[in-house]
Amino acid sequence: MNAEILAIGTELLLGDIANTDAQDISQGMAELGIDVHYHSVVGDNPERIRQALELALSRADIVVTTGGLGPTYDDITKELCAAAFGLPLEMHEDSLRRLEAFFTGRGRTMTPNNRKQAMLPRGCTVFPNDWGTAPGCAMEKNGQHILMLPGPPRECRPMFRRCAMPYLQKLSGNAIHSDWIRIFGVGESALEARLLPYMEHASNPTAATYVRGYECLVRVTGKAETEEKAAELNAPVVRQLCEEMGESVYGVNVSSLEETVVRLLKDRGMTLATAESCTGGLVSKRITDVPGASAVFCGGVCSYDNSVKRNVLGVDAKDLELHGAVSEPVAARMAQGVRTLMGTDIGIGITGIAGPASDSSEKPVGLVYIGVDVKTPDGSRTFVKEFRFRGDRDRIRSASADNALNMVRTLPELQG
Amino acid sequence: MNAEILAIGTELLLGDIANTDAQDISQGMAELGIDVHYHSVVGDNPERIRQALELALSRADIVVTTGGLGPTYDDITKELCAAAFGLPLEMHEDSLRRLEAFFTGRGRTMTPNNRKQAMLPRGCTVFPNDWGTAPGCAMEKNGQHILMLPGPPRECRPMFRRCAMPYLQKLSGNAIHSDWIRIFGVGESALEARLLPYMEHASNPTAATYVRGYECLVRVTGKAETEEKAAELNAPVVRQLCEEMGESVYGVNVSSLEETVVRLLKDRGMTLATAESCTGGLVSKRITDVPGASAVFCGGVCSYDNSVKRNVLGVDAKDLELHGAVSEPVAARMAQGVRTLMGTDIGIGITGIAGPASDSSEKPVGLVYIGVDVKTPDGSRTFVKEFRFRGDRDRIRSASADNALNMVRTLPELQG
Repeated sequence: MNAEILAIGTELLLGDIANTDAQDISQGMAELGIDVHYHSVVGDNPERIRQALELALSRADIVVTTGGLGPTYDDITKELCAAAFGLPLEMHEDSLRRLEAFFTGRGRTMTPNNRKQAMLPRGCTVFPNDWGTAPGCAMEKNGQHILMLPGPPRECRPMFRRCAMPYLQKLSGNAIHSDWIRIFGVGESALEARLLPYMEHASNPTAATYVRGYECLVRVTGKAETEEKAAELNAPVVRQLCEEMGESVYGVNVSSLEETVVRLLKDRGMTLATAESCTGGLVSKRITDVPGASAVFCGGVCSYDNSVKRNVLGVDAKDLELHGAVSEPVAARMAQGVRTLMGTDIGIGITGIAGPASDSSEKPVGLVYIGVDVKTPDGSRTFVKEFRFRGDRDRIRSASADNALNMVRTLPELQG
Repeated sequence: MNAEILAIGTELLLGDIANTDAQDISQGMAELGIDVHYHSVVGDNPERIRQALELALSRADIVVTTGGLGPTYDDITKELCAAAFGLPLEMHEDSLRRLEAFFTGRGRTMTPNNRKQAMLPRGCTVFPNDWGTAPGCAMEKNGQHILMLPGPPRECRPMFRRCAMPYLQKLSGNAIHSDWIRIFGVGESALEARLLPYMEHASNPTAATYVRGYECLVRVTGKAETEEKAAELNAPVVRQLCEEMGESVYGVNVSSLEETVVRLLKDRGMTLATAESCTGGLVSKRITDVPGASAVFCGGVCSYDNSVKRNVLGVDAKDLELHGAVSEPVAARMAQGVRTLMGTDIGIGITGIAGPASDSSEKPVGLVYIGVDVKTPDGSRTFVKEFRFRGDRDRIRSASADNALNMVRTLPELQG
């Protein structure tokens, strides 16, 4: 089976937003083993939508539309899709009641326009919208399927995962289950070389690799009669791949390095503080992206100016003079200083040159020192790593944050 | 004239990346006044690329392709586009020399594959690639145009701006100039209502509005024989719109609120420090996103735990007990505390509940207090605002950061 994703919305053609819906849906289709052959985007123009839909139906088994389900006159996706399958639109009472409840709950009055959102093609499978107003739906004719999803990514993404993917799974008679192995610090080609023996002859589960900055992901997807059985198929393969990749695996089915760090610290009842110079608070921002981070993260100091390094973190003026702010001893003192200041088990210190220009010293852009200080029974233990990152300011800063988090993750104190 | 953007690359159909090239190009086309009717995406499949190209040429005056210009065998965009216009590919000596220099400069050897990247359609307009290896190009036949750009956004975006936009401008015989007015804290419909009298009958320059979270943008685009003259056409309109929107305009042709804040502080020789609780360092991260922020930003404290509020920022334990951490007095003390600690002219204090769950108090998720403390000749002046934001953790945090930056921007001390 193959699919086409047809996005409807002039805002895409004006460049107001990127078509992230197509990306989200494509990822899900890859998990389902359904080939996506085309993405298309048209504006809110009935004739061009009709033609694009006709073209999609001429070449795809499954057409997924996004957008054009709103209450205004130019939202006509349902009308045109229903017409393509020769179906009338009918009021869907359940959806109407949900809409009424949505408006009542917000103290707003529902207009006749809004009622239009509850009109759906006769006999369709309804996808209730728990994230907004417009319900989605799916319909079938002669083995072809049209699925309609709302345009806003906050609604499209969860509705695709929660409603459309199970609908599509049923078509193949199989359930699927995907596991995501997250890996830090291994390049994609090295990863592929190491995983090839496992991936080459695998048909169920399948495995695929993805790159995200300094990270790699391996998706393992199994197919079986039930999702539980598919998960069982995955389990030994996931275990095997994790063993092969060793310490570079930072988690399975977790969403980020910071989530792993917060969980590890929580499990061990340990606390963390950060001292950041070139990253300017990026590490503390990322740690506090994780809900519940307050259990392990006490706080941080962004010591952009040397006076803050000295006066707040207690970095020795002599070290700053002798070695410069971007140096191994200063990274160590920052980590120690913030750990002591905030009374935590672990302190991170980051100092570097993020560019675009170097500082007055002759150190190169991209030179970064990261220190980690960990409390021990008789004091503390500090270690510092030197990095030379390439790329622009953004990349150097995010690589620094990634590596600082990874240094904490791989602390012996957090293992086992 | 109308255009179609045809992206070529299986990675898009697998959902590995979003099609941000289409967004960037669409924005530029809107500035040029060229209507984009379709975006299409196909994989690295010769037959489907050929068909998609044929379809695009059957319905668009201008076809812009992205991707498929690399050195590997499945990069066949140039072959297929040249064939569509009946042109042979020829070695382009200038591009070959640039490629050789690129590889030599990196101490790498050029393979025969790489030479393929310098093969271009006979008689085309070459777009040199200053950001990577593959040159782009444009060619014309019977009034139709195909432009080929590399896929990586870091190459596509600047090449489109620097090479393709001037090429397209020449087609219309006009040059264009766009100005971007950036506005904070005004909703899109309110903005449109206020700008309507100016925009309704405007044909040159034209104006269009865009929304980005809490911000709105107005693009003013003029057309004339030269870019200078187009800029002159814009000037009075930009002035008029800025007057109409008053203080909510935070800049023209600047890239962010934080850039404006850094510039304003620099102009007045003033310095800033931040104390952040629920935003966890997001404000300091955003300020230090701006190159050269070190001239005005001394540093910040992320006081996630109350002990840090007390011990580092000097917030009174009584205030914490009596009013709770998320309260007006605590926001004020945080701002005062960090300003004193770091010896700056201005201090920001942010405390709030970002969710997903509320803290043990009965305060609602989304409640945020932002304090700003400014040095005066006889001490300091502090003011605090209460906000009730809606949305998820991310939205609440970024709305808090936006509003904190905007409070600094609108300080009387930074005006005039």
